[in-house]
Amino acid sequence: MTQPKPFPLNAWYAAAWSHEIVHELAARTICGKDVVLYRKSDGAVAALDDACWHRLLPLSMGRLQGDHVVCGYHGLVFNDAGRCTYMPAQKTINPSACVKAYPIAEKHRLVWIWPGDPALADPALIPDFHWNDGTEWVGEGGCFYKLKCDYRLVIDNLMDLTHETYVHAGSIGDEAITSAPFEVTHTDRTATVTRWMIDIEPPPFWKKQLGREGHVDRWQIIYFQAPSVVVGDVGVALTGTGAPQGDRSQGVNGAFLAAITPETETSCHYFWNFVRTFRKDDHELTAAITKAHVNDGHGVYDQDHAVLEAQQVAIDRNPRLPFYNLNIDAGALWARRLIDGMIERESGAPAPVSRAAE
Amino acid sequence: MTQPKPFPLNAWYAAAWSHEIVHELAARTICGKDVVLYRKSDGAVAALDDACWHRLLPLSMGRLQGDHVVCGYHGLVFNDAGRCTYMPAQKTINPSACVKAYPIAEKHRLVWIWPGDPALADPALIPDFHWNDGTEWVGEGGCFYKLKCDYRLVIDNLMDLTHETYVHAGSIGDEAITSAPFEVTHTDRTATVTRWMIDIEPPPFWKKQLGREGHVDRWQIIYFQAPSVVVGDVGVALTGTGAPQGDRSQGVNGAFLAAITPETETSCHYFWNFVRTFRKDDHELTAAITKAHVNDGHGVYDQDHAVLEAQQVAIDRNPRLPFYNLNIDAGALWARRLIDGMIERESGAPAPVSRAAE
Amino acid sequence: MTQPKPFPLNAWYAAAWSHEIVHELAARTICGKDVVLYRKSDGAVAALDDACWHRLLPLSMGRLQGDHVVCGYHGLVFNDAGRCTYMPAQKTINPSACVKAYPIAEKHRLVWIWPGDPALADPALIPDFHWNDGTEWVGEGGCFYKLKCDYRLVIDNLMDLTHETYVHAGSIGDEAITSAPFEVTHTDRTATVTRWMIDIEPPPFWKKQLGREGHVDRWQIIYFQAPSVVVGDVGVALTGTGAPQGDRSQGVNGAFLAAITPETETSCHYFWNFVRTFRKDDHELTAAITKAHVNDGHGVYDQDHAVLEAQQVAIDRNPRLPFYNLNIDAGALWARRLIDGMIERESGAPAPVSRAAE
Repeated sequence: MTQPKPFPLNAWYAAAWSHEIVHELAARTICGKDVVLYRKSDGAVAALDDACWHRLLPLSMGRLQGDHVVCGYHGLVFNDAGRCTYMPAQKTINPSACVKAYPIAEKHRLVWIWPGDPALADPALIPDFHWNDGTEWVGEGGCFYKLKCDYRLVIDNLMDLTHETYVHAGSIGDEAITSAPFEVTHTDRTATVTRWMIDIEPPPFWKKQLGREGHVDRWQIIYFQAPSVVVGDVGVALTGTGAPQGDRSQGVNGAFLAAITPETETSCHYFWNFVRTFRKDDHELTAAITKAHVNDGHGVYDQDHAVLEAQQVAIDRNPRLPFYNLNIDAGALWARRLIDGMIERESGAPAPVSRAAE
Repeated sequence: MTQPKPFPLNAWYAAAWSHEIVHELAARTICGKDVVLYRKSDGAVAALDDACWHRLLPLSMGRLQGDHVVCGYHGLVFNDAGRCTYMPAQKTINPSACVKAYPIAEKHRLVWIWPGDPALADPALIPDFHWNDGTEWVGEGGCFYKLKCDYRLVIDNLMDLTHETYVHAGSIGDEAITSAPFEVTHTDRTATVTRWMIDIEPPPFWKKQLGREGHVDRWQIIYFQAPSVVVGDVGVALTGTGAPQGDRSQGVNGAFLAAITPETETSCHYFWNFVRTFRKDDHELTAAITKAHVNDGHGVYDQDHAVLEAQQVAIDRNPRLPFYNLNIDAGALWARRLIDGMIERESGAPAPVSRAAE
Repeated sequence: MTQPKPFPLNAWYAAAWSHEIVHELAARTICGKDVVLYRKSDGAVAALDDACWHRLLPLSMGRLQGDHVVCGYHGLVFNDAGRCTYMPAQKTINPSACVKAYPIAEKHRLVWIWPGDPALADPALIPDFHWNDGTEWVGEGGCFYKLKCDYRLVIDNLMDLTHETYVHAGSIGDEAITSAPFEVTHTDRTATVTRWMIDIEPPPFWKKQLGREGHVDRWQIIYFQAPSVVVGDVGVALTGTGAPQGDRSQGVNGAFLAAITPETETSCHYFWNFVRTFRKDDHELTAAITKAHVNDGHGVYDQDHAVLEAQQVAIDRNPRLPFYNLNIDAGALWARRLIDGMIERESGAPAPVSRAAE
């Protein structure tokens, strides 16, 4: 029996920001599959295997002819369902001549693809990513394409914010995170880590956003949807104004959004955004927050990426070395357990040993 | 039983243009074998294994001493038959100390090497490449060394010119190629694809060469000699002047020449020329034609190479995906069948599954 | 049974020049093990496995906190014995949480590490490298980190100086080396090659150092200490002044020093120096000698390295091709035999077939 891949195929994964896909051929690798994406004249997005049926040339090296794709080598034409509609120098077309077409959905400003069995591609399963809609919450994110680490390392990273203290000292990191208690809950598709830091000195970033003096209550509520979406509801409010009880009116509230898509077993595309409900019309603030996250190697996420890619290198170099876990890993462990369950149900085989779950 | 390589060893392969090999050590890898070539004082070319018998240092890092090669590490000397004639600090030479010498022939302005059993290296088997002699036909070609694709992909490419319509639109490509009928004939060492396009508007390149108005008959007669030489007799003549019947006097005639030498299983050296029988003294035309083929990524062959290397990458990424064939592949299929026959007779084992022949 | 590595682990290997290790984290790979080194406030050097117990991030990406190492991801702290002294968000520390600490010794201006069983790390086994102390002999060497060849190829190179004639023609190379007889002696840990060239014209380098006209007696006494230290006592003295009998007063004496540390099975760190007993206060001469050895690709050692790395490439490309040996390889063969003995005693298995010993 072949070892299953470390990701389920029967799931919706972010393939692109909506604005990235226009009436042009765009190549992506998703869960090990080479895909060509394009937007049709009716506005919908199509996705085909990026290898011509005939001699495997990537279709993304060809061109669009209306809503059909023309191979750049011998001119075979495929429609948006992947069926060949033209072959050079022959009148009859081999009826089996087709390339795979992938189910596509567009929602929450992202293009989602279903790399597995098309019959199972239920739009109701698209992750809840409404924070990214650009209405209630605002923010302008991006994507780290081809991040050189297993997508699960990004999930580990986001499910435990203790690392902020060490990786992001000076901006959002704070000793208080490390000492605050947290709790983990879960359903069959989600896991949630909740941490409240009561009556603390706010860290520099939040102090500036709040714009008021005094101690705060800080919250980090991290919500995982299997297999690979993470939303972190974060913020601070003046201590004693009722935030832990539900009244955040005397605070500022943001959310980090992450849709992480396996590219290969050891690389991923990381669609990110940081959105907020305060000063929503302040475009300078939006730009500043984006820059704080990604800034030519100096942003908060850039710091994470150096760590994540180094961690992947270390795993590759020490293939037999297990991960060990701390209390802080409880959220990541639940996320991994939910992912493993999806893989096992899909493949009928045990998930590959999740080193972080040992 | 070891899987045979995808190329026969008992064959003459182009190793260099004659003018490239002077009284200096030149390294090439041919059919997976590292070879050092040099021209001796008698004008003949010698070829030895490019690894010292003693400690494997490439002999091409050494120097010539007369017609002998001195290893650059410990000074062992080898004559042009590969026999060691000097060892440092010892008076007697181990009689088994030698490196392999390869049969070499020089013909048609190319240096040909026989990587297989020297006893079988019959000069009569050198491919007919007389178009390259520089007399009846003129042209100045070159070589793409280390093209990153299986040499058979280049043969596929040349045996079916339908691709001109898509890869070379705007120069030599034309819809007429795709719609014209063609026929394939073969012998036990050759395959020939013949295509005539009668009474067509000439494509831009040929219209300019012809220098006359009016419809033309265009021919493409592609001649394959196993394992890896392709000559394409191509041209146009004014319609109704008898070209299909053999009178090409009212036309212009060229030939593309290709000797493709496996470097490894997935790379090759592609010796090319485009020669002609018209305006033979027009050196500016010669230079212009060369530039039309190879021009810093913008020539006709440069376009092919982007396709060929991308195709190899796709094959490497999809090792189990078969090639499918169209009618247009009939010539390439015969070429592959002849190659496979050579491999099987040589190795006593079936040729590796030729994906294009399935 | 796993094939043993081509190096013993129970041995002292040079890890750094002493002056390179300060109160900062420094990463090295030694015998396939990733190590982080730093100097403690008491002046001693500590060495730990360079991968956090928790999630494998290289500790060298973290920071020092006093003499402890703080992981750059989640803040785990390890003391200089490798024991974890702090875990984020938990009061009790898993008693098994530790990373390996390596025995370290500092001697002869180098930091030595013992990658094997710490219980066997006897300081008495540190190689005799007193020539490098900076007192009796002077010189300023360096290190070629990550030289891309098996460390034993460097030993082969140094144990037979015949190569000087070919690799270093024009400086220290000389036909006399090749024709002079030599003898090899050995103990259970050392091998010595002794070569005297009597009454010869001195080669350019030595003629200049001697500063006197006339023929010389030249000596090369190469002393190997298993597994990987080589000292070459070299020099010239005016012929007839008694050098072969022990009176070197009418000559000039130098020594090349080499401590070669396996980085991986096919790469190494080569700590080198060239020291001398003459004109010891002449700093310009010291600088000139250093430059003669390593000079942006043009020094004597740079020439060796081009050869060594090309040789490794050739070995990798011809994995089944054996090395053959000449008389000149007698010293290298003894060195390899001593290394193989160490590996066999350590692993209880035969050493990997040493191609040079066949």
